[in-house]
Parts: sequence; structure tokens; C-alpha cells
Amino acid sequence: MGNKGTMTKTKIWTEIDYDKEGKHVGWLHLPYSVTRSAYGTIAMPIAVIKNGRGPTAFLMSGNHGDEYEGQVALCKLIRDLDPGEIQGRVIVLPAANFPAAMAGARVSPLDGGNLNRSFPGNPEGSPTLQIADYIESVLMPMADIFHDYHSGGSSLQYVPFCSTYQGTEPGWNERAVAALKAFGAPVGLVWRKMSDPGLSVGAAFRNKVVALGGEFGGAGTVTISCLKIVERGIRNLLTHVGILPGGKIVPPEKPMRFVEVIDRSYYTYAPDQGLFEPFVELGDMVEKGQACGQVHFVDDPARKPVPCHFKNSGIVFCKRQFGRVERGDCVAHLATDIKQ
Amino acid sequence: MGNKGTMTKTKIWTEIDYDKEGKHVGWLHLPYSVTRSAYGTIAMPIAVIKNGRGPTAFLMSGNHGDEYEGQVALCKLIRDLDPGEIQGRVIVLPAANFPAAMAGARVSPLDGGNLNRSFPGNPEGSPTLQIADYIESVLMPMADIFHDYHSGGSSLQYVPFCSTYQGTEPGWNERAVAALKAFGAPVGLVWRKMSDPGLSVGAAFRNKVVALGGEFGGAGTVTISCLKIVERGIRNLLTHVGILPGGKIVPPEKPMRFVEVIDRSYYTYAPDQGLFEPFVELGDMVEKGQACGQVHFVDDPARKPVPCHFKNSGIVFCKRQFGRVERGDCVAHLATDIKQ
Amino acid sequence: MGNKGTMTKTKIWTEIDYDKEGKHVGWLHLPYSVTRSAYGTIAMPIAVIKNGRGPTAFLMSGNHGDEYEGQVALCKLIRDLDPGEIQGRVIVLPAANFPAAMAGARVSPLDGGNLNRSFPGNPEGSPTLQIADYIESVLMPMADIFHDYHSGGSSLQYVPFCSTYQGTEPGWNERAVAALKAFGAPVGLVWRKMSDPGLSVGAAFRNKVVALGGEFGGAGTVTISCLKIVERGIRNLLTHVGILPGGKIVPPEKPMRFVEVIDRSYYTYAPDQGLFEPFVELGDMVEKGQACGQVHFVDDPARKPVPCHFKNSGIVFCKRQFGRVERGDCVAHLATDIKQ
Amino acid sequence: MGNKGTMTKTKIWTEIDYDKEGKHVGWLHLPYSVTRSAYGTIAMPIAVIKNGRGPTAFLMSGNHGDEYEGQVALCKLIRDLDPGEIQGRVIVLPAANFPAAMAGARVSPLDGGNLNRSFPGNPEGSPTLQIADYIESVLMPMADIFHDYHSGGSSLQYVPFCSTYQGTEPGWNERAVAALKAFGAPVGLVWRKMSDPGLSVGAAFRNKVVALGGEFGGAGTVTISCLKIVERGIRNLLTHVGILPGGKIVPPEKPMRFVEVIDRSYYTYAPDQGLFEPFVELGDMVEKGQACGQVHFVDDPARKPVPCHFKNSGIVFCKRQFGRVERGDCVAHLATDIKQ
Amino acid sequence: MGNKGTMTKTKIWTEIDYDKEGKHVGWLHLPYSVTRSAYGTIAMPIAVIKNGRGPTAFLMSGNHGDEYEGQVALCKLIRDLDPGEIQGRVIVLPAANFPAAMAGARVSPLDGGNLNRSFPGNPEGSPTLQIADYIESVLMPMADIFHDYHSGGSSLQYVPFCSTYQGTEPGWNERAVAALKAFGAPVGLVWRKMSDPGLSVGAAFRNKVVALGGEFGGAGTVTISCLKIVERGIRNLLTHVGILPGGKIVPPEKPMRFVEVIDRSYYTYAPDQGLFEPFVELGDMVEKGQACGQVHFVDDPARKPVPCHFKNSGIVFCKRQFGRVERGDCVAHLATDIKQ
Amino acid sequence: MGNKGTMTKTKIWTEIDYDKEGKHVGWLHLPYSVTRSAYGTIAMPIAVIKNGRGPTAFLMSGNHGDEYEGQVALCKLIRDLDPGEIQGRVIVLPAANFPAAMAGARVSPLDGGNLNRSFPGNPEGSPTLQIADYIESVLMPMADIFHDYHSGGSSLQYVPFCSTYQGTEPGWNERAVAALKAFGAPVGLVWRKMSDPGLSVGAAFRNKVVALGGEFGGAGTVTISCLKIVERGIRNLLTHVGILPGGKIVPPEKPMRFVEVIDRSYYTYAPDQGLFEPFVELGDMVEKGQACGQVHFVDDPARKPVPCHFKNSGIVFCKRQFGRVERGDCVAHLATDIKQ
Repeated sequence: MGNKGTMTKTKIWTEIDYDKEGKHVGWLHLPYSVTRSAYGTIAMPIAVIKNGRGPTAFLMSGNHGDEYEGQVALCKLIRDLDPGEIQGRVIVLPAANFPAAMAGARVSPLDGGNLNRSFPGNPEGSPTLQIADYIESVLMPMADIFHDYHSGGSSLQYVPFCSTYQGTEPGWNERAVAALKAFGAPVGLVWRKMSDPGLSVGAAFRNKVVALGGEFGGAGTVTISCLKIVERGIRNLLTHVGILPGGKIVPPEKPMRFVEVIDRSYYTYAPDQGLFEPFVELGDMVEKGQACGQVHFVDDPARKPVPCHFKNSGIVFCKRQFGRVERGDCVAHLATDIKQ
Repeated sequence: MGNKGTMTKTKIWTEIDYDKEGKHVGWLHLPYSVTRSAYGTIAMPIAVIKNGRGPTAFLMSGNHGDEYEGQVALCKLIRDLDPGEIQGRVIVLPAANFPAAMAGARVSPLDGGNLNRSFPGNPEGSPTLQIADYIESVLMPMADIFHDYHSGGSSLQYVPFCSTYQGTEPGWNERAVAALKAFGAPVGLVWRKMSDPGLSVGAAFRNKVVALGGEFGGAGTVTISCLKIVERGIRNLLTHVGILPGGKIVPPEKPMRFVEVIDRSYYTYAPDQGLFEPFVELGDMVEKGQACGQVHFVDDPARKPVPCHFKNSGIVFCKRQFGRVERGDCVAHLATDIKQ
Repeated sequence: MGNKGTMTKTKIWTEIDYDKEGKHVGWLHLPYSVTRSAYGTIAMPIAVIKNGRGPTAFLMSGNHGDEYEGQVALCKLIRDLDPGEIQGRVIVLPAANFPAAMAGARVSPLDGGNLNRSFPGNPEGSPTLQIADYIESVLMPMADIFHDYHSGGSSLQYVPFCSTYQGTEPGWNERAVAALKAFGAPVGLVWRKMSDPGLSVGAAFRNKVVALGGEFGGAGTVTISCLKIVERGIRNLLTHVGILPGGKIVPPEKPMRFVEVIDRSYYTYAPDQGLFEPFVELGDMVEKGQACGQVHFVDDPARKPVPCHFKNSGIVFCKRQFGRVERGDCVAHLATDIKQ
Repeated sequence: MGNKGTMTKTKIWTEIDYDKEGKHVGWLHLPYSVTRSAYGTIAMPIAVIKNGRGPTAFLMSGNHGDEYEGQVALCKLIRDLDPGEIQGRVIVLPAANFPAAMAGARVSPLDGGNLNRSFPGNPEGSPTLQIADYIESVLMPMADIFHDYHSGGSSLQYVPFCSTYQGTEPGWNERAVAALKAFGAPVGLVWRKMSDPGLSVGAAFRNKVVALGGEFGGAGTVTISCLKIVERGIRNLLTHVGILPGGKIVPPEKPMRFVEVIDRSYYTYAPDQGLFEPFVELGDMVEKGQACGQVHFVDDPARKPVPCHFKNSGIVFCKRQFGRVERGDCVAHLATDIKQ
Repeated sequence: MGNKGTMTKTKIWTEIDYDKEGKHVGWLHLPYSVTRSAYGTIAMPIAVIKNGRGPTAFLMSGNHGDEYEGQVALCKLIRDLDPGEIQGRVIVLPAANFPAAMAGARVSPLDGGNLNRSFPGNPEGSPTLQIADYIESVLMPMADIFHDYHSGGSSLQYVPFCSTYQGTEPGWNERAVAALKAFGAPVGLVWRKMSDPGLSVGAAFRNKVVALGGEFGGAGTVTISCLKIVERGIRNLLTHVGILPGGKIVPPEKPMRFVEVIDRSYYTYAPDQGLFEPFVELGDMVEKGQACGQVHFVDDPARKPVPCHFKNSGIVFCKRQFGRVERGDCVAHLATDIKQ
Repeated sequence: MGNKGTMTKTKIWTEIDYDKEGKHVGWLHLPYSVTRSAYGTIAMPIAVIKNGRGPTAFLMSGNHGDEYEGQVALCKLIRDLDPGEIQGRVIVLPAANFPAAMAGARVSPLDGGNLNRSFPGNPEGSPTLQIADYIESVLMPMADIFHDYHSGGSSLQYVPFCSTYQGTEPGWNERAVAALKAFGAPVGLVWRKMSDPGLSVGAAFRNKVVALGGEFGGAGTVTISCLKIVERGIRNLLTHVGILPGGKIVPPEKPMRFVEVIDRSYYTYAPDQGLFEPFVELGDMVEKGQACGQVHFVDDPARKPVPCHFKNSGIVFCKRQFGRVERGDCVAHLATDIKQ
């Protein structure tokens, strides 16, 4: 059944043997007993491509089900990557929160779970927690490098970027930034600290695996240009870590731009419920105090709109997609350039 | 109660008097008796701005609740338009299918009604049918010109354009095209025939009111550039029909491009259920037989994607926004240039 | 199967024979074919109590499922009324919109139908329409007098009253008012015209059956004092029409008060969405222009409440029960005293 | 585009040409505009297999979505039937109420529609009504023989039988019974009259097409033995009408048994809500007055169970599958033998 | 960010500074990441009114979202209380379980959470648990006195009373009863022990804060008389603790009545599912064994109603509002007078 | 209140006294506070039948709400078993997961809980967890023998069998197998180890109570033959343990067959989503590698079906009932004969 170690108590099982040579595409089975299927399992796709000795890359998408560029790129990789091309192993989990991915939703329709707030998970918990546990305790320990492909999902659109996280292990930051540069996205972001241990990067940290992230598009759609960034980046990264010995790192068209996101002052929130009219575009440079947009009251159109303002200066790095807002929705967040 | 004529049997009532001078913003009340409110009404915003004699423009948005540029522009118009500026009357219905607009949805959450397939409506029917009847039998008869602002909504994005419909009344087409040109959108589309008598333009035709339409953006969002087109166009149109005597028609930056959409061969549909990877961008010129995109099977990633192809040549005028598709979803439609 | 006449096309069937002597309690079966029961029927309780020749009283409750005093009183009548006591026939339909009554809801959970807006119904329509048709075309033609017991339901509370409707048939109004007075509620209301032909009273009119109505309480509860009014009134009414030859009409404690409700100016509606604070109590006398209450914005408590005012003078005859309101909810309506 | 005649107003379109030689498997597209797909269509599978001149058989399943033997048999027929084998045309609609079939439900999840109560349908109506209209006005006029494969669905199980309906056209009954006998099910049933013009057989009658029906199993499952009856019967029927010139009619193992179902006294209904314990098995011979079963009150186990009894004698032809019942659910129905 | 202490791990943040002079009305932001808003927060209103040194009163309503008198009174207090009037600080949380309050429901629509069973909460838990944790670990430690305003909510109505809880700290009971008396409700109740540590009063106990509670009305409505009790009581209480130095304690019209509720024998439960007819009114004195009411079976009206009886003697202190009951619903509870 | 011991922290209470002589049928009350009933309880039926000293049998059904033979048999036992017949005590919990049983569902509609994966439960948890805790900590400690009656539920059908579990206590296995043989089902299964400590048998083990299980039918129905097995077995078991001193053990018609289920290779899963056509019947002997069935794609009938195969040889012991499958549903499982 391929699970590594004897301490693992996951109930998820698979016919995939992670140590077998060649390409193997199959399913993880998560037991899910419901009225329509007493002995049912949730069958989540997984692929392992292995050739001899070498490092293991663990590539994942669908952590949020409505973030699609990574899912497309990894489905193509599963079909296209020939075991003969590689040295080592690539483990691909293209729809990490599978029920969410099938629903085109951020969170699981089964338990409302946001997988990227659920690590380290729980082998006795709800489906989302069981998936988190399996990734943290079965898949991540096999990895030397981990990349989790995100986007802004249904509700946000992003300036596309690849990211990594600063760590405290000796040499960690050098290895992380080298991987980030190798991936070759137009923009790079190094998070100074993890915002939440429940992120997938938390699972990587706890397993001492260098981790990349990033937001490649958004707005609930598949963007051709973002997909190209991801597809090229995957091959760059596999080449960088030595899994694609015949690969060649293709750099971005323009030198990478490096940015950072420091604190809550970078974020702007909707001040009321209604229809949001934005005043700025993605990528605009804005000043502290500048109006970000205003909320209209379509049910009471004579009522004066309520504006909101940026609490910092910077690049509009992320914008809300949906026109309707509730008070407290993030309508935009900024980033600021850093010297590399 | 302002309802015109004695034959009208609508149950919708309002305190707005459509014949009163000045600016009046209020609500249409549609009786809706439910457990939480036995004598409840749905209060739908409406505004009338009137000054002396002159033509009546009836401007409407929120026919589909998730199409936002028109809603923003009309809310701003309601607050900004001074009765002293105008000669005649402007009737503004900013959230035509009000329950849908509040839900940010194409169709009404109350009855699933698509208002733009529901004309001429029914005064005894479900809320959406009652609204259609009120527009057709109360509001439209007061109008000299009608404009219904749409966009691609949540699921589609469009090359922004303004449209009108060919009619058979003498002089109709000239008046319609003159209004279209006055509005001044970058692209103009003249529909040769109405696809469905249930459209709002059907209500206009039956009342012999020249009607404009158009799709100004989409993807469930508010686009600054599309909003500018609508706001400028409204003032252009009101100037053109003589309601804004002091107005000045501001033409588009570039000469208008005129296009047409002929038949079903202009539309491409998803060939299976899964995650759609598009191969073309909005505005691209494509050839008949060219691949439009392919459906990936994330639940079974080893399965070969299924492509779909354009059945005609033309401009990619409209694209599906959401990544996930079901077989039969429209993933793109074309337009072709015409000489004006 | 007891259905009268050959033109009736109802699909509802019953084992009750309306012409049989004695007391018979059974069910009307409305075929309702769904996944959980392909050949299912909705079994709606009905009772017929008959003794020899004499008039037929048709007594009904549960027209709205969350109006309870009538339901309790009629259930007790079904068990308590002895055929030997009566001369003629009493037909009792204690849960007219049965699915709504079982759900404790105003409208049917099956089709959203408000039975009291659904007459004359449709034998081919949704369950609510089929029920309306059965009442209009099968039960009502058997009746000499009809009484439909309502209350304010979940969302409203009422000063309890019995009502009737003015008609144009010779002698109608005299018979109607005589029945109203015999019933003996503390307050009587004579509607000048029917607000909607879809009411049960419309079915009575079309069948030339004198009809009583009334609102006996409300607030989603069973009120002991209202229940007493209904129970006493039923016996009074049956005595009055000669069905209870040994009965004795028990007049109300105080002389009946007669009121009327003239037009829309008697109704006050919520001016915004929020939490409604009433300023008046049920039964208060109020003046035109007096504040009825105000809407608080609990989500934004610094925002000033929005008041609403009475548009007429009169007695506060009906008040909204639920604290939360949406714009357009009726929060109160008035009545005015008339001389009898 | 294939639609026959100019009067047809259906909005359903297809790329299938019903007059083209060979085997063509494609989809009917029913426009269904919703928030998730503004220009979406419901893509319903259809197949046409044609070879030269000859009669047209129209075979259909999935009229109720949870009746499966016909769906399996017709999917297999679509793949297996070679145009070279046949003379004439076979039109196969394997999932008539497609949304119901995908949901494994009797009725459509989109509109609650029971297709087999919806004929003649309505081209402007809800999806189920549009499907009914398309079958009645486009597909049925092309047919010489029609067979609609049913079963007991989720809630009932049946003694498997094939059925037909008596008509008034000269020669009709002979042709109908000949087809019934050719099909060769173990049991045959000739309905004396149609219980409802909304049945698919009503569409056949109105188009003067001899129609077969039947219930092949049930209980929400696929039964191997019933599937064999259907698969053998289809080939028998196609042979009988001359479409399979090389075919050979394979008679049932035992001589067909002929039964009839006369009136409502053949049906037994649950007398209360609870858990139903049956006293008889499918196929048992029972006497009028015999107990059919009893309802237990699991929430109140000390309460005495309530029994129900057969109102006629006969074979237990159909039994309810689900243990839980509501008052008015059909728990069994009978048939009685007839001489052929 | 105003959060006190460094051990607090809440994810809830606010721009309110609890230590700043003057009146500040803003929002607590609870991060809630869902498909419609990836970086959304639930914005819950809060107000701080501060002037110099002095005690802190923490006043809260909306613990159950459908209990309204406290919400109205606190919204008015937020607008009306002038910082110049007070000495010390008043922290007002008018909609503690904000999602429930917006839904007009007892429990949260997001997680089904009953906030008043959720203390001490969990900063990593569902929204309701995060709110409980914030109250227990951030707000309560700042308080010297705490009052949580309840009512019977949608399903119950109460004889209005103010309550407090006996404690074991020296001097506690004296301070608690003094506060109770100062508040000046018509009826006072001293709970001998807390029924559940999950109550808000548990949070107060664990923080050694004297706590008041009470039920001011119910039946899902706003009662003018109960609102007056709460509004007067708030000013009395703030005067009593020295926050309103110029205040004057206004005693109730009649001397306070003191009651107690001892054990489960004070509660009466519905004996079956159906329509409940009560035999007693709120405030009635009843004897042990007396019938409380009976359940009618409207679906089967010939069935004998099932009564239930009081298991103790006392005042009917609380009654169920909704007419329909399920077995096990509390239909009434008693209180008994005590000497003070 | 009957709860044993002082450590028990359950909130569930009952008026049943487990130590009282005679027959007592009542309810367990699980507090469940919701909007429709602030002080509501879930009233779950329980019965205790006691006569003098002797062992205690704890009999349970409705662990899964859609498994009915046990529920019928135990309801009958509650009414039929006379205290005078017995020596000792019988505790009967006929609807263990009461909300699921009322819904006819495997899992609870309140919290989605599968009771048979929820032991040892949690007295502070959701309703399903509170029920598990009550069984484990209150009821099970009173038992000497425990039997939990299951079936395949809605989604599966089984060859009926009685089962027990091997333990490690001295003498355990002998006692367990003796009880299994006494019960006298046609087939016996001895589980070598518990698949999950969350099963009810886990609660029995932890309390050192010999436990029987078994699957008596399935397919969402009540089978007469299976019901007979259960009813006869209950009396056999009570006789065996000495509770029915006058009883007589009635052996099965044929010698019991003993089987075992060893590992995951006994189970076959659906390989894709669609309509499943089985190739084998319940009870068939199959060989490793033999096809079990195939999935048809009714939405795309030209697509080739996908088969699945048995991974072991054995008896088809369990089969999926529902025709529609999703990938990962168990479609069949095997058992293999053992020598006894």
C-alpha cells in the first residue's frame, strides 16, 4: 500500500507504490461513509514518475479547488513527463482538496474545510483534515522540494508571482531563493514569516522541505499567460534540482522583480455591503490615503457611496474580482518593491 | 400611484409619480407574501428625473443581477443628474431584476427567473414575470428611447460593445443606428433579428421604442474602462435625444468598429465536463477549424484531454470566465467585422 | 369516491362519501410522484359529519399553515361534534394547505404556493393549485355557508376579529352581516371588496356561498383567548344557520365593535433593512404622521436609525412580530371604526 | 439541425441529422441560462442508426432518471448495433429526462418535473416541459414504433413486465399486442386506458405511433435478469418490425402470462407515517382483506402498529422498496391474471 | 490593535484602541476565508466609550441572534452616551454572535454554533468558537461588571427578569445582588449554580467579573415594555457602578419580586409531535400535576390529543411561542417565589 | 434519572430508571438548542424490561438509520416481551442514531455523524458524539451481552449473517462464538480484528462485554426472511444467556455456514463515475480476476464502458444497490468459507 513508516495512522490508502520505477497514475482512497455509499471512498488522483536515484519533487495544485493554472499544468505534466527524461522522482497531487476542486470552490463542499488552513491535519478528522494529515505525514516526508501552485481563486486576481518563505535552518534561505529564481516567474516574493502554521508551507517547514508557493492569476479562470509561467517554471525547477538532467533553465523575459508584503496596512477592506466600484487597476502604484474605491447601494441609490482608502503606498498586487461586497471583504492588497 | 392607463393589472405599486417635476427616488413595491412576511413587498429602486416637456429616456440595468457596470453608472446618474440640466424625463431602473441584483446572480433566487427571457411577463406570475410585465406595460409605454446595460455577467467576458436591433418600422433603423453611433462605444453591433421575444428589446419593439443594448465587460466584476464607456455613452445618448440640451457628444477615441454575429456557427461549446484550458484570448482573430481549447479531467489526469474547435472564422468576441465546464457550456463566441 | 358532477377533473380522490350519514374522518389523496415515492399521494385530513337534511357548513383552517387557532378548534370539533346533535352537514378541512400546515409555514414547502392567492386553482397544476381547485370545484359547491379561520401567522399579530365581504347578489349583505354578528367575535370587519380573486372568499363568491373570514391571533402561536373566540363562534354560527337546532347563540362579553380598512394608506412599511423598534402597541389609537417605529442598523450601530410614519389615523390593528425587517415589509396596519 | 417541419418552435437544437445514413451519436442541446453559464445548454445524448429505407423505431429510457435497465440496454445497443445489420432507422434517447438521469432521481433536479406526467410539454416551458415537447413534436412524428423502458425506480420493485395500451384506431390493438408478444417479456399487461395524457404513451397516441412500455425491475438498482429481458426484447422487437431483417425472435422461457390492473382497489396505501413491515412478497397471491403490512412507530415503540389491508385479490405485482413511509405512500399494488 | 496581553492568540483584529479616550465605534474583524471572499473577514460591530479613570462595564447583546431588546437598547446607548457624561469606560458588543444576529437566528448560520454554550471558545475554531474566545480572553479581562441581555428568542416568551449567579469568592454574592437590585427589573432571579460552563457567565466567572443576565421578553419580537426595562436598567447599572456619576437610580414601579428555578422538575416537555394547545398563560400560578396543554394531530384529527402536565407547582415563567412542537421541546418552565 | 456513577458527564437525561422492575418505555433526552426550540431536546426511545436478578442484554438497532430489520424486531420485542417471562434485564435502544433513523439515512442529518465510527463519543460534542458517549459510558457498563443489528442500509445488500469479534480476554472467544451459534443465523462471521475502534463493538470491548453484530438484509428495505432471522435469533440469544428461562433455542434450517473477510483484496470499487452494470449476483462464487461489472457513461453513450475486476476469489457477500456510482464506491465485497 506504499505508506511509509509504521506510525502513520492515516485511513487513506492507495494502490500506488511510491517506490516503484516508471510512471504510475492512480488514486488515493479516503473512506467516506454516507447514505449513498456505505463503504464509499473519495478517489483523489495522484501520480508518481520515478527513474532511479535522485531527489524527489512534490508538486501540488488544487489546494484551493478554484485555482486552476496549477491544475492544468500538472495534468499536462502527468501525461507528458517521460520517466526516461528524469533522474529521481516527481510526485504530483493535482487536486489536493479534491472535493473542492470538483466543485470549483475554494473550500470543500463536504466539510467547509479550507485545506490551506488545515495543516497538520488529523487522520481521524473530517475529509479536509485527513487530506492535510496525509500530505504532512506521508507525502511531504518523501520530498526534497515542494511547490504548491495557487492563484487568486474565484474572488481575487493577482499580479502573477512565485514565492518562498524565510526559514531559520542554516542555508535554508539561500536554497529557497535559488529555487525561487530558478523557477523564473516575472515577480518574486519572499515571505518573512508564515502567516499561519496551517498553510501547506507549514507542513513543508515541519518536514524541513524547501517550499515554493505563488499566485498565478485568479478570477476563477485559466489565464494563458499565467499557465505559461507555471509550465515553464516547473521545467526550470525540475532542472534546477537535478531531476531533469537534460533540462535548460529558461529565464523570464525581463529580470525578476522582487516585492514584499509587510503587514496589515497593505490590505484594504470593504467598508459596507453593496456594489464596489474600484478606482485603481491591478499593477497601479498608489499612495497612502488614496481612495481605493467606493461602495454603492443599489437598493437605495440616493444614498451616498462609502469610500475606502489605502493605508499604505505600493503596487496594487491583488484586487477583488466580484462586484458585490460585504463589509470586511478584502478589496485590494499592496506589495512594495525590494532590492534583491 | 402613477400607473398609466386602466387596463394595467399589475400588482406592483409605487409612491413615485412619473409625471411630477423634479428628481424622485423611491421604490416599486411587488407584493410577496411569505412566511417571514405575510404582507411583505419586494422594494425595487426606481428614479424619475423630470423637467418640463421633452422626450423620455428609460435607462435600465440589473436585468441580469451579476452585470455591474450599468448598475454603477445608473446609481451615479441618479445622484448626479440635476433636473435643471435636462429637458424631458429620465426614468432609471438600476436593478431591474432586484432579487437577482442583491444576490449578485444572473437569475432571481426567488423563482429562478431570467428576466431577459421573461417578457412580456405576467402580472399574475412569479416575481420575475411581474417585473417583466411592469416594464413592458407601465414603464416602456412612457419611453421614447430605451437602453438596457448588460455585461457578460459572472460566467462570460466580452469585448465591450453597444448594440441595437433592426426593425421593420419605417425610419426605425436609421434612428436606431444614429442612437448607437451617438452612444459612442468602441464597437457597435446591429442584430439582424431578435433571438427571443422574451428579451427586454422585445418589450421595446412591441411598444415601438428604439432600443439599445450592449455588453460592457463581464467576469462578475466592475471594469474601470467599461464603466467609462457606459458613463460617457449615457451622457452622449441623452444629448443625442435632446434631453441634455447643454450636452456635447464625446466620440470614442478610435472610430467605432462594427461587427455582427450571424448564426450558431459563431458559438463554441464545451465537449465534456472538466477543467477548460483556453487556447485563445479575447479579441484574437481565429480561423474555422482552429482549436478553441481543451477539457482536462483532473479526477483522472491520465485521460487524454478533449479539444473543441471553432466552426467559423472571426474575432473572439466573448469567452467563458469560469475554469470548470460542463458539456454544452458556451466557451466562446465570435463576431465578424462589417462595413458600415 | 364522492366527487360531485362529471365535469370535475381533479386528480384528488378520497374514500369519504360526502353524502353518507354519520361522522366520517379520512383523507383526501393528492397524487404526488417523487423519487421517494413514485406512486405517493399527499394525504390531507377531512371530516364530514352529517345527519339528515339541512344546510351544509364548510369550515376550513390551515389555508396558511402557520395560523393555528382554527386548526385547534376544528380538530376539537371533529372529535366532539356528535352527528346526533346536528341537522344537516358539516364539512371540516382542518389543514387546507396540508404541506404548509405540517411545516408550520405560511406557504407550501412543495411549490412555494400561498393557497390564499391561488384560487380558482388548477387540477393539472402544482399541489397548491390542485388543492385550490378541489376546494373551489368539489367542496364549495356543497356548501351553504363557508368560514375560513385565519390569524396573523408567524409574522403578524392581530386584534382578533371576524370578517365578511360585501357582495352584489340581492340579500347577500344582509345574510353575510347576520352570520358575522351571530359568530360573535369582539370585532367585526366588513370588506367592501375583495382584494384578490385568488382568496378563498373568491371561491365562495363564484359559488354564491356566503363566506366569513377573520384573523384570530397570530405571532406563530396558539392564544387561549383567541381560541375561545373561535370555539364559541363556531357553535354560534352552526346554531345560526340551523345545523345545531339545540344550540344557543352566546354573544360576546361586550357589544361588537365594527371597523373597516379602506386603502393602502392604512398600511406602513419598513423603510430599510435592519432591526425594527416599534413605538406603538396593538390596539393603540394613532394619528396620521405619527412615528410608527424605526429601523436600527446593528451591523453599523453609529448609523442613525430610519423612522417610518403612519399615513393615516386609526387603531393599530395589526403589527409585525419578527424584529428583523427588510425594506418593504409591512410593519403595521390600521383600521378605523364604523357605525353599525 | 435535423428538426422536421416549420411549425416546430422548440429551442432545442442538435448537430445530428436524423436523415443521414450510418451511426451518429451526439447531443440535443437545451438552452439553459444560469449564473454559472449564461449561454449554457443541457447536452442530452441521442443516437441515430440508419440504413436505407424502412421503419423507424424510437427507443427511450431515462424517462424517470432512476430506472436503469433501459439505460444500460440502450447504451449497449448504441455501441453494438451496426448500421449494416439494419433496414430502416433506430432513434435512441437513452436519458430522456437527462438532468434526472444524471442525478439518479425520478424527477428533474432543475424544475422538479416528472417527464412522464409532462406531455405534450411546452417549447417555452421549464427544461422538463421542453424535453416533452421535443419528444412529442420532433422525435415521435418520425417513429413507427415506440418503446419506453421503465422500472419501479428507487421506491418500488416490480414483477418485470412489458405493456401496451388499447387504442381506438382500427387495427391498433392487433398491432400493439403483436408487438407486445414479439418483445417476449415473461409477463404482458394491456392497459385498457391511459391513466394520464401526460404519459409518453400519450405523445405516441397523439402521433398514432404504436407504443410499448413496461416495468423491468426497480429498487434503484440494475438487475441482471431484468436487463436480459430488455436486451433480448429489443432485438425481438426490431426483428418483429423488420428493422433487423436477419434477426430471429427468441421467445420467453415460459409462455407469457397476461395480467391486468383495473382500478384503484388494486392499490394499497400506507395508513400512517413510520417504518413499514410488509407481510407479503412480490409475486404472492393475496385475498381481499388480507393484511398487507403494518406501520411501526420507532419514535414511540410502545404505540401499537397500524396495519393496512388489500382491497382486492390478486398477485402482488409491485411493492414499495423503502422501509420508511408517509401516510399516502403506495406500499403495494396488485394485478390479476387474464386469459389471452 | 488594542489586544491586551501577549498570550492571546486570537485571529480577530480591530482598529479600535480600547484605551483611547472618547467614543469609538468600529468593527472586530474575524478572518473567514470562503469561495466568495478568499481574504474575507466577518466585521462585527463594537463600541468603546471612555473618559478618564474609572470602572469598565462590558455590555453585550446578540449572544443569541434572535433576542432583540438588548440589541436595540445597546444600539441606542452607543449613539446616545456622551463620553463627557461618564467616568471610566463602557465597552458595548451589540451583536455578539454577529452572523446569528444578522440572520435573526439563535445560532450561527456559519457553523450552527450556539455562542452561549461555546465558552471558553477556541482561537483556532469555527467562527462561534473564535468569538467566544475573544470575549473570554480579550474583552472580559478588561471588565469590572458584565451584563449580557437575553430574551426568549424566537421560540420562547418570558416573564421579564434580570438575573445573577451565586459565586464562591468572598463578597461576590453581595456585589452581584446589589447590581441586580440596582438594575431594577420587575423580577430578579439568582441562579444557585451555573447550568453550563459554556455560558457567557462562565467567561465572567473565570475572569472574576460580576455578571448579570436576564430574559427581557421573547417571541422573536421587540416589546416596548421590555425595552424600557432594559434601557432604564442600563442607566441604573452604570450609575450604580459609578460610571455615570451624575446618574440617578430609578427603581421599578413595584418592589422587585425574587424567584428561583431549582431543577428539571420545573420544566415541561412536549409529549409528541404536533400542534400544541396551551392551557395556561404566562404568569399563571399552577399546581403540580395540572395539565399544561395537549398535542393535537392535525394530520389525523380523529386521534386523541396527548396532554402533558406540570411536575411542580409555581409561576408559569416561560412558554413556548411556536404552535408546532416536536417531542422533547420545552413547552413551559416554572419559577417559584423566594423571600429576599 | 438512572445514570450510573458520578463520573458520567453526559448531558442526556431520562425519566427511565434502569433498576426498576417491570417494563418501562420512555425517552432519552439529548439537549439540542436551536432557533426553533431554545430549550429543545432530542427524544430518543428506550425501553427497559426487568425481572429480578439475572444478566442484562443490551439490544440495539438504528445505529445506521436506514437499516431496518433490527428496528422492526426491537419495536415488536418492546411490545411483546413480558417481564414475567424473563429473569434479569433487557435494555432496548431501537433507534440508536435517532435523527438518522427518523430521516431513513445512514448518518445524522444534524451533524453528518456516522454513529458507528463515533465511539467512544464525547459528552460535549455534537449529537452523534453525545449518543456514542451515552452508549459507551452509561448503557454498555450495565450489559452482559450486546447485540447491534445492522443491514446493508440504503446502498448495499448483504447475504444475511450474524457476526462476532475475536478478543484477547481469556474465554472471550468461546463465549462469543457460543452466543453467535445460539443466535442461529444461516451464516456466521468471526472478525479477526476490529476495523475501527469507533465501532459500537469497540464500546463493548472497552467495557468487556461480549458483542454480536451482523448484517440482516439491506437495500433500504425490510425483508421478511431477514426479519424472521432476527426475531428468532433474539429469542435464541436471550434463552442462551438465561434471560428467557422458559425459552428454547431454535436452530437454523441448515447448519450454519462460517465465513471470513480477510483484507482489502476482498473489496471491489467503482473505477469511474456513471451507471454500474453488475455481472454477478449476491451469493455467486467468483474467481480472482473475474469481471465484477462495468461503468456505462449515459451522458456519452459512445464512450466505452470501464470494467472492474475481483482481486480475490470467494462468495459475493455484499453488492451495491444503487445503479449510479462514483469512482471509489464499493460495488461488491467477498467472503470466503472457513471450517468451523
